[in-house]
Formats: sequence, C-alpha cells, structure tokens
Amino acid sequence: MADRLGATEREAALSELDGWEPVEGRDAIAKSFRFKTFNEAFGFMARVALRAEKLNHHPEWSNVYNRVDVTLSTHDAGGLTELDVKLAKSMDAYAKG
Amino acid sequence: MADRLGATEREAALSELDGWEPVEGRDAIAKSFRFKTFNEAFGFMARVALRAEKLNHHPEWSNVYNRVDVTLSTHDAGGLTELDVKLAKSMDAYAKG
Repeated sequence: MADRLGATEREAALSELDGWEPVEGRDAIAKSFRFKTFNEAFGFMARVALRAEKLNHHPEWSNVYNRVDVTLSTHDAGGLTELDVKLAKSMDAYAKG
Repeated sequence: MADRLGATEREAALSELDGWEPVEGRDAIAKSFRFKTFNEAFGFMARVALRAEKLNHHPEWSNVYNRVDVTLSTHDAGGLTELDVKLAKSMDAYAKG
C-alpha cells in the first residue's frame, strides 16, 4: 500500500504539479480543468479513466459540460500518497493534449 | 429549443423513469447509480457521453469509484424538458446493461 506523504514530500510533490491546490479540511488535492467542449472534457476523462484503472487508483470527479473538477486522495492511506501525485501528473499531461 | 415541462407532463415523465427524484430548490431530477466496479461505472458513463453528445444535451454528474450521481436539467429552458427525460431513459437502460 502507498504511504501517506509527509509534509516535506507533500510540498515537493505539489510544486511539481500544475495548479493543484490543497483541499480545506482534508488531506487531498483538487483542480478544476476547463476544456472547449464536452467532447474534449469527456475525451480527457476517458484517458484518465484508463490510467486510473491501470494504477488501481481512482479520482473523485464531477463534470458539467466543458468543466471537470477533480479531487485526489488515497482512501486506504487516509490522505495524499504517491499514487495521487502520479495520477495528478498524468491528468496535467492529458489536459495539455 | 425544448420547452420546459408543465406540472402534468413532469409528473407523467417522472412516473416513466426508474428512481429519479426531483431536486430540492431546482427544476431538475437526480439519481444515484451504483455499479460493481469503476470499470462498470465508467463504461456506463462512456455510453451516456455518446448519447448526450448526440442529443446535444449533457448531464451534471460526479463519479467516485463505483458510484455515478447524476442531475439533469435543461439550462437553456431554465428547467426540466423532454431532453432530460430522453437522457434519463437512456441512462436507465444503460444501467441495466
């Protein structure tokens, strides 16, 4: 199982990510992605879904038309782990197309 | 553009759907779908996405692992229309596999 990140690791991880923010009151990170259309937003979600299934680590996310709001945390570990950082990095890459 | 449903049409439409509930404080309907796995949940979402794109009418939805929570309303019409009923019926059918 992935270990929960310590404060230093957490800070280092966040600095490598693009625009992810800590979530108030939870050991989690969140980001809102905007696309041009639903087609692009769901295309992004499909890529993330395949990656999530491969990592066996899944996002909490919502979608309204061209917007995808994502929260990442590792339930089994009770907070942020390397798995969240991996998935966040993939999402940043996919969002760039 | 689709017209907002009147009270009678709305009631008739809801009675044809499987487990959709009115949303408090909004002219919208909502349903929570549960699947066995993320694979099944996202498979459902992919089918709904294709249908939504064809109808040019999109859900507000969120997903956490095997759960998909959906809210339907027609923004342009300021409430529930025949488009929401069509999309809801398709979702009910897809959820049955």
